[in-house]
Amino acid sequence: MATRLEPLTAGHVLELAEPLPLDSGRSLAGVRIAYETYGTLNPDASNAILICHALTGDQHVASPHPITGKPGWWIRMVGPGKPIDTDRFFVICANVIGSCMGSSGPASPADDGRPWGMRFPVITIRDMVRAQVALVDALGIAKLHAVVGGSMGGMQALSWAANFGDRIDAALVIASTSRHSAQNIAFHEVGRQAIMADPAWAGGDYYSADGSDPRKSGPEAGLAVARMAAHITYLSEQGLTEKFGRRLQDRPDGSKGAKTFGFDADFQVESYLRYQGLSFTDRFDANSYLYITRAMDYFDLAEEAGGKLADAFAGTRARFCLVSFDTDWLYPTGESRTIAHALNAQGLPVSFVELSAPYGHDSFLLDVPELDRVVAGFLQ
Amino acid sequence: MATRLEPLTAGHVLELAEPLPLDSGRSLAGVRIAYETYGTLNPDASNAILICHALTGDQHVASPHPITGKPGWWIRMVGPGKPIDTDRFFVICANVIGSCMGSSGPASPADDGRPWGMRFPVITIRDMVRAQVALVDALGIAKLHAVVGGSMGGMQALSWAANFGDRIDAALVIASTSRHSAQNIAFHEVGRQAIMADPAWAGGDYYSADGSDPRKSGPEAGLAVARMAAHITYLSEQGLTEKFGRRLQDRPDGSKGAKTFGFDADFQVESYLRYQGLSFTDRFDANSYLYITRAMDYFDLAEEAGGKLADAFAGTRARFCLVSFDTDWLYPTGESRTIAHALNAQGLPVSFVELSAPYGHDSFLLDVPELDRVVAGFLQ
Repeated sequence: MATRLEPLTAGHVLELAEPLPLDSGRSLAGVRIAYETYGTLNPDASNAILICHALTGDQHVASPHPITGKPGWWIRMVGPGKPIDTDRFFVICANVIGSCMGSSGPASPADDGRPWGMRFPVITIRDMVRAQVALVDALGIAKLHAVVGGSMGGMQALSWAANFGDRIDAALVIASTSRHSAQNIAFHEVGRQAIMADPAWAGGDYYSADGSDPRKSGPEAGLAVARMAAHITYLSEQGLTEKFGRRLQDRPDGSKGAKTFGFDADFQVESYLRYQGLSFTDRFDANSYLYITRAMDYFDLAEEAGGKLADAFAGTRARFCLVSFDTDWLYPTGESRTIAHALNAQGLPVSFVELSAPYGHDSFLLDVPELDRVVAGFLQ
Repeated sequence: MATRLEPLTAGHVLELAEPLPLDSGRSLAGVRIAYETYGTLNPDASNAILICHALTGDQHVASPHPITGKPGWWIRMVGPGKPIDTDRFFVICANVIGSCMGSSGPASPADDGRPWGMRFPVITIRDMVRAQVALVDALGIAKLHAVVGGSMGGMQALSWAANFGDRIDAALVIASTSRHSAQNIAFHEVGRQAIMADPAWAGGDYYSADGSDPRKSGPEAGLAVARMAAHITYLSEQGLTEKFGRRLQDRPDGSKGAKTFGFDADFQVESYLRYQGLSFTDRFDANSYLYITRAMDYFDLAEEAGGKLADAFAGTRARFCLVSFDTDWLYPTGESRTIAHALNAQGLPVSFVELSAPYGHDSFLLDVPELDRVVAGFLQ
């Protein structure tokens, strides 16, 4: 693969005229925001829904991924007649800054024309949201009908409510948290160390001079290990057991699975994980993985508000819907409950439901019909 | 550090005269078993307790580690007047084969005088136990008063009961399981991939020709990442939160912790994990990590018995004690319960207790006074 980065973005790109102020105190000039829209904005611009994507997601929420060709990552939720109904709503999804699907990130050119690499400023969830606010401004939308997100997308939705609470009517937060726990940070740190331990990372300066796709010249081995470790946290023990158990791989020669007494992928779960790791490196930039995990680890809405989570929501009158999954051990139900209590303390309208689904954290992306009903019901 | 491997073993070494048959169908000639003993074997050899160590453990259960100088890993449990009382019992602890503390493993010389590396045969938990049986034979012990182990040590204790059930009077199995789950395998596979992704692994052929310590010439970066990932599974979310929460590191210049908006270890939990990873590489051989994790992943006592766990215990009249910890998510209480049911089905005497401790899987190594009482009570 030697495509240049630019053509990856088949959709829209907004380039901000003003530098974007960042939580670090730095600012980022020439910010580009790659985004997709679905449906039609109504005359009074009151039907816009912003969908925020997760760590390794992108703007292609309901359209094919330009690299993998796979359907949009939430095609089951977004489209005509679907729970987020594009016949009624104008749906926006933007690649977060720091990522690698067309929005400004470490693989983007800096002022000197060379890729930023690790010179890119460390960003926060709130910085991602600031870029989205600029996009919503540019689209002429004063107030979003709703901001919606799962996992890191839910953090962004919460950050919208906390920082731009008068710009949203509603926030739908799925399988998310108001702050990264020590265990969350620990897993991310393993991933970062795996990437940075790979000699091909080269201090983040692995982009080829001709601007060819960074996904094929970087620390693929380290990134694959990072993805493998993270992937386990997205699945439940129960889900892994149901899907794979201790089943052995059938061999290439057609013989049935048997222990090889070697280090090939004997167990199906090993083969699956290896595939998850390797295929990820085709579509994601390792430095983006470092920056976005850092942003998530820094996320602590209570801290931003001076220590009390309820205070974070003092500036909004939005209504909220929180959804958790009973098998999600990355952001367990207790995290959503904490948010619900804070919203209650502010007297804000909030519905909170824990859904039963076997898939762990990834449930928000998978076939959970009850989630469809909750989403459709909340947005109508 | 340029010490040779041999002097690492301050204690006893048994070299087996006969080749050791292995589950793979291969056999291993010239097996060396490094072991420690504590206390005195009584005249009728009826007071011997074998302690089996965990994945990264060793024979130095109650004596200082020859590399780190740290006290024995179960010094709180083993010694005069302690729950495993060396005034009364003759305590044996042997380094498992495949490991790197003096017993035969991938760093040991093969027939050609060069280190085995990945030519070392893949071993199983039962193979480790076979070596221990040979040791117990050599010590003139017909029947062990008890076999005791936590985590992988518990797997060995179960394997003793299943395969050499007439050689033990009792088995004490702590924080363990009768088979590795898909999630257990997945975490181990991440570690193996981290090691094998490190170019310094070099197909396992990284030992220096002069026989100097392999721990200093191998894939340290990959091994450190493997250890970091595993270490998270040894701790509970609650324990990590209590110990570290989201507290930030104080800086080397003495200033109080603050976000650096960089990729240094801002959070204390990051710094802790990095230290755990790096310090591990001083004392452990990466290839041993591959082999021992493989042995654990292969472990499935029900499968060995033809599919029914209870059948695994048909050949023993031993009494059992099973201990789990409520915060252990690596081998949760349900795993011990499954074993208890199988033992009940065989009509074997079993006591089973779930202890409450905040430390997760590592609770079996830490200060849990209730565990001391359970161990002392069972062994008396």
